[in-house]
Amino acid sequence: MGMVGGGKDAFIGAIHRIALNMDGLIELACGALSINPEIAEDSGRSLFLSPDRIYLTYDEMIKKESELPADKRIDFITIVTPNFAHFAPAMMALDNGFHVVIEKPMTFTLDEAKQLKQKLEQTGLMLCLTHTYSGYPMVKHAKAMVQNGQLGKIRKIYVEYPQGWLSKLTEREGNAQAAWRTDPKKSGKSGCMGDIGTHAAHLAEYISGLKITQLCADLNIVVDGRALDDDGAVLLKFDNGASGVLMASQIAAGEENALKIRLYGEKGGIEWAQQEPNTLLVKWLDQPMQVLRAGANYADRLSSFATQNCRTPGGHPEGYLEAFGNIYRNFALSLQARLDGKEPSKEMMDFPKVEEGVRGMAFIDNVVASSQSEKKWTPFEI
Amino acid sequence: MGMVGGGKDAFIGAIHRIALNMDGLIELACGALSINPEIAEDSGRSLFLSPDRIYLTYDEMIKKESELPADKRIDFITIVTPNFAHFAPAMMALDNGFHVVIEKPMTFTLDEAKQLKQKLEQTGLMLCLTHTYSGYPMVKHAKAMVQNGQLGKIRKIYVEYPQGWLSKLTEREGNAQAAWRTDPKKSGKSGCMGDIGTHAAHLAEYISGLKITQLCADLNIVVDGRALDDDGAVLLKFDNGASGVLMASQIAAGEENALKIRLYGEKGGIEWAQQEPNTLLVKWLDQPMQVLRAGANYADRLSSFATQNCRTPGGHPEGYLEAFGNIYRNFALSLQARLDGKEPSKEMMDFPKVEEGVRGMAFIDNVVASSQSEKKWTPFEI
Amino acid sequence: MGMVGGGKDAFIGAIHRIALNMDGLIELACGALSINPEIAEDSGRSLFLSPDRIYLTYDEMIKKESELPADKRIDFITIVTPNFAHFAPAMMALDNGFHVVIEKPMTFTLDEAKQLKQKLEQTGLMLCLTHTYSGYPMVKHAKAMVQNGQLGKIRKIYVEYPQGWLSKLTEREGNAQAAWRTDPKKSGKSGCMGDIGTHAAHLAEYISGLKITQLCADLNIVVDGRALDDDGAVLLKFDNGASGVLMASQIAAGEENALKIRLYGEKGGIEWAQQEPNTLLVKWLDQPMQVLRAGANYADRLSSFATQNCRTPGGHPEGYLEAFGNIYRNFALSLQARLDGKEPSKEMMDFPKVEEGVRGMAFIDNVVASSQSEKKWTPFEI
Amino acid sequence: MGMVGGGKDAFIGAIHRIALNMDGLIELACGALSINPEIAEDSGRSLFLSPDRIYLTYDEMIKKESELPADKRIDFITIVTPNFAHFAPAMMALDNGFHVVIEKPMTFTLDEAKQLKQKLEQTGLMLCLTHTYSGYPMVKHAKAMVQNGQLGKIRKIYVEYPQGWLSKLTEREGNAQAAWRTDPKKSGKSGCMGDIGTHAAHLAEYISGLKITQLCADLNIVVDGRALDDDGAVLLKFDNGASGVLMASQIAAGEENALKIRLYGEKGGIEWAQQEPNTLLVKWLDQPMQVLRAGANYADRLSSFATQNCRTPGGHPEGYLEAFGNIYRNFALSLQARLDGKEPSKEMMDFPKVEEGVRGMAFIDNVVASSQSEKKWTPFEI
Repeated sequence: MGMVGGGKDAFIGAIHRIALNMDGLIELACGALSINPEIAEDSGRSLFLSPDRIYLTYDEMIKKESELPADKRIDFITIVTPNFAHFAPAMMALDNGFHVVIEKPMTFTLDEAKQLKQKLEQTGLMLCLTHTYSGYPMVKHAKAMVQNGQLGKIRKIYVEYPQGWLSKLTEREGNAQAAWRTDPKKSGKSGCMGDIGTHAAHLAEYISGLKITQLCADLNIVVDGRALDDDGAVLLKFDNGASGVLMASQIAAGEENALKIRLYGEKGGIEWAQQEPNTLLVKWLDQPMQVLRAGANYADRLSSFATQNCRTPGGHPEGYLEAFGNIYRNFALSLQARLDGKEPSKEMMDFPKVEEGVRGMAFIDNVVASSQSEKKWTPFEI
Repeated sequence: MGMVGGGKDAFIGAIHRIALNMDGLIELACGALSINPEIAEDSGRSLFLSPDRIYLTYDEMIKKESELPADKRIDFITIVTPNFAHFAPAMMALDNGFHVVIEKPMTFTLDEAKQLKQKLEQTGLMLCLTHTYSGYPMVKHAKAMVQNGQLGKIRKIYVEYPQGWLSKLTEREGNAQAAWRTDPKKSGKSGCMGDIGTHAAHLAEYISGLKITQLCADLNIVVDGRALDDDGAVLLKFDNGASGVLMASQIAAGEENALKIRLYGEKGGIEWAQQEPNTLLVKWLDQPMQVLRAGANYADRLSSFATQNCRTPGGHPEGYLEAFGNIYRNFALSLQARLDGKEPSKEMMDFPKVEEGVRGMAFIDNVVASSQSEKKWTPFEI
Repeated sequence: MGMVGGGKDAFIGAIHRIALNMDGLIELACGALSINPEIAEDSGRSLFLSPDRIYLTYDEMIKKESELPADKRIDFITIVTPNFAHFAPAMMALDNGFHVVIEKPMTFTLDEAKQLKQKLEQTGLMLCLTHTYSGYPMVKHAKAMVQNGQLGKIRKIYVEYPQGWLSKLTEREGNAQAAWRTDPKKSGKSGCMGDIGTHAAHLAEYISGLKITQLCADLNIVVDGRALDDDGAVLLKFDNGASGVLMASQIAAGEENALKIRLYGEKGGIEWAQQEPNTLLVKWLDQPMQVLRAGANYADRLSSFATQNCRTPGGHPEGYLEAFGNIYRNFALSLQARLDGKEPSKEMMDFPKVEEGVRGMAFIDNVVASSQSEKKWTPFEI
Repeated sequence: MGMVGGGKDAFIGAIHRIALNMDGLIELACGALSINPEIAEDSGRSLFLSPDRIYLTYDEMIKKESELPADKRIDFITIVTPNFAHFAPAMMALDNGFHVVIEKPMTFTLDEAKQLKQKLEQTGLMLCLTHTYSGYPMVKHAKAMVQNGQLGKIRKIYVEYPQGWLSKLTEREGNAQAAWRTDPKKSGKSGCMGDIGTHAAHLAEYISGLKITQLCADLNIVVDGRALDDDGAVLLKFDNGASGVLMASQIAAGEENALKIRLYGEKGGIEWAQQEPNTLLVKWLDQPMQVLRAGANYADRLSSFATQNCRTPGGHPEGYLEAFGNIYRNFALSLQARLDGKEPSKEMMDFPKVEEGVRGMAFIDNVVASSQSEKKWTPFEI
């Protein structure tokens, strides 16, 4: 595969490389790793890329790679550039027959997202969106419990994502991550909600199997001098009548990456916190709480969606990189199955796709619209 | 003192009695413990009350007690009846010169609350409202930290209060607690928000020292056949510009009494959870989190408001009953000081009073109004 | 009842008073509260004792009280003096027909303990030993689970009790608690093991229902200038063949009162930690861990020994004072039953008695002997 | 590099492969992956090894690889066979100029360990022992805190390693892992202490910088029919006068892999638990406990030994595989530095070496000897 963006000066590119290396299924064969040619070259060399496959632009990369013989050519590209630079390489890759892995939020605008969706339908190619948190095994088990009806009808969802790293005007202190994420020209029409609110919304829909139908948003710019929201809360209504609350903040001083979700059904509730990801709390209406653990020796009773996404036995903690690796592994196994003319298993196909990407972009649009509205409820429109 | 309500068949009466017994400062001398004469008699006897001070109505009790000589007469009455039966005995007690301790929410309507406030201003008597959770030492230390500016300006408040005990139609299964709390004629215009939302709102205002100025509420009746809200979420605005989220639910299946509050300021955040009340987490923007503990050996650096509300050294956990006891103790010490012609200390006077009771009733009114409104924001009016 | 020791300058006396006040079953009627007459008088007055029942010595108290008419006379005395001053008032009380509540360790020497046991057998009176930690409801449920065979045969016990308060030579810095506890003339032949090791050993035997048969001890004086052990670890063998480890330390800098016990049987294990006492972790060999909670709504499935020692519903935490109160309540209910000519229930009789006191003193003797021996195993002799 | 053992039917081989893949520094180029030729072939193919570098024996592999030109030849081999089959391939590899990575315990006997040490001294080659748990960043920070004197002189060490997976006679139920680990011919003279006690002892010495000088062991065979110890506890003395307790068990039903260590010094204590590895609790004698977190934004104040072993920012949990990866990465970076004629940094050289391997084998010998002795203390001899 080849990578667009993710040079030495970036954060998420290195994470993607560890994730795709993890299971020995994917080889990083080429890259257009930076818009800065020097960084692109340097980064490519330090990653042991073959010199003729270190490209200076995605355009060059896609063209050259598509001209290689099938057995040398990459199968897919990963796009890890800032949001505003997702669409063009993705579209060009699809146009040239490459599958695509792409960071969230999927595009800069909802319209771009819809175009990608249409293109995928036309080409039959695959797109994988790296909503990492849905790669954790206990998240998958939570989803399975809901699907199996173990909690009864879902009534209430709380999802929260407090971070503290934008508590100051970090973007003016040389933090490159902060700089582009708080810049409307690079990040899009929302800051905090686009960056982490979309993760929270995706997790809520992924686990519950429900769709948000209405929302009521309060977005805030807390730190003076910032251009985009750095905090917000959203009341939610879901398509089965359940209600929910989504909280996302980047000014929750002292918090790291404290994504947490709770769902309550008629029979019980579940709680999962990303910072202790191998544990799933299951609270029963009239029984003691159970603490389910990834890889545990009762794993035969965990969902196959969980067990097929574990690499270690219980008590040997897996983390964020393994969850990220699961997204890549499932995508790679699905791709391989298709290349082999086989039908991928449901477990393999369990990675976020273009539909989730479209809903994420719509979430951003709707949240921003609601935030600007004096009406309480805004319908979730796509 | 004397008690109105709280007979053998009640829950909160017994809690009040343990709390007031705890420090040996208060004596239960008389009671009108039930509207059921048999229960009133039985309960009085089993509490070793003198037979001539077991009354069948609060009316009788207040009259007879006010006729006793000053050294025999009670100083105050505690009212632990359902909400609709708070106002009349409270007003009569005040009219007869007795101080009052009263369960929350203070009255049935906001108007009654205002009348009590006026009466107290006229008489100079004291009213203590048992918002128990503000009696915990680490809650008091949290308040002190905010006041001292240790967290900088407060920017965000999350307060949540999930319970699961009304996940079914328990009120039809012989649960007396559930029956009156879900009955609009006894409980008032709100169920969940009146019962526990008021605690959450009080805690947020108590710790932060801020006042809610606007709110946007989503109240739900989740369990079919129920007459009052059993779940809700409220977006909040505070008078310093901070925003907040209040979540209260009685259908969060599997939760016990999981009141929790988090406040974030410019410099750090704090987190306190009622189910582990001796711990206060202090999260710093750029330092490791600290775990402050009630009674710890660095207690000299805890606020006097915290240390004067501890009975045991660190690691000997105090709980709900001690927090409740603190409310009574502070009230009793303040009362004693006044009777002795002295000025009570600030620490003694740190118990919830009529002002909090009025704000609690206004919270209920405003939340219900907002819930019925199509406009996003409802101003907090009293 | 009457109290020996526990004046204003003491710690544990105040704790006892809160515990015995808690349930309104016991009245503090007299006291010989200090060997310092001024403190004795002062303390008595501030506790509202009748002036003629404020005594200056236990001797005077026991004599005068035994001359009172039966309906005015106290039923029992509580002894909360330092260890060396337990035996004489206890024996005199028993000789005069009073029941006794006594702090642990029960006496200064094993021989005194045996004499108390003999006297109790002769008189038929009752002795209650305040091993507080066995008063917690979840400790009682743990014991019930072992007895019911839910864990299978017990194979391993870990019990640990780290404290940090003697990390420095606190006894020379005016800490009265530290002073007598580290003084062999007042505390006995062991410091740490006598003070807290005995609690740990008691808890292990109480929950498991097993008896220690052999031990191998390593006692240390860590802080220079101290006369008694302030740290130690003991390997244990139990009468069913299980093995165990007991760790107690008062130089574990930064620890509060971190008593914790784990037992493992053939089918599962349990873990209970005093600083979060309302929770009992139950770990199953091939099922998810369960988190049992005091007062929870599945309480009907908790042991009656647990439920009869709870005062609040789930999520309203009870703590150390309530556990202490349970010891007193059970003793008082048993005493009342006997006075009423009834047989107390098993649950009422579930408080530590003289047998546990004798075993505690033997534990101290055997641990000290083992510590001084070059042989690995020392048999547990009484 | 090349791998000896670790075929499809093994557990730890796959773990090693993920760990060495993780950072893109190491390539698995050849293997003798099983003594079963069919498995060896199959496993090699499924790992995409070049067919001519899939060997059937380590002997063949070492010979053939040593004949390859320097730029094609592997640099080191990893040995992941059962204990009894460590020494021969390690010695042969060293004799042929290959560096070695080896699973713990390093050899079958102490004598073999000493021979390896001698050979390494003669050849100047490097050996890396995969004591994984010392690869965690917060373990490294703990070590740095001790070295910097932040805790004062260390006085007490508790290290515990309870597992439950051998609570039944699993070795007779087709569990291949259990089978060889409980077989004296394959595992060596100790079961539990050799398998996990050695990890615990290593961790205690690694973090504290101290050496065990005496020990007193109680080893048990708890499950009937087992040939080697499956449980044990050891009292320890260290070379600075500190004492300690080491507990290891494989019959602690319901435990996963609950390695935990606590060290207490004059000024404070630290606690680290493998199942929540990104957190280090720092308990101060007279300050609130601090919760240090891997990757946190105060990382500039964490030790370079910690920060250079993190891949993600705070709140993105790393786990067991990353700790394992750190061992490989540091070894690989040190090797690369040497190949480049440079001196590796202290941080790079921070991986377990032959000295730790020799001490581990001596620990097994001494623990077994102590267990069989009637004397309390056995000196730690090498």
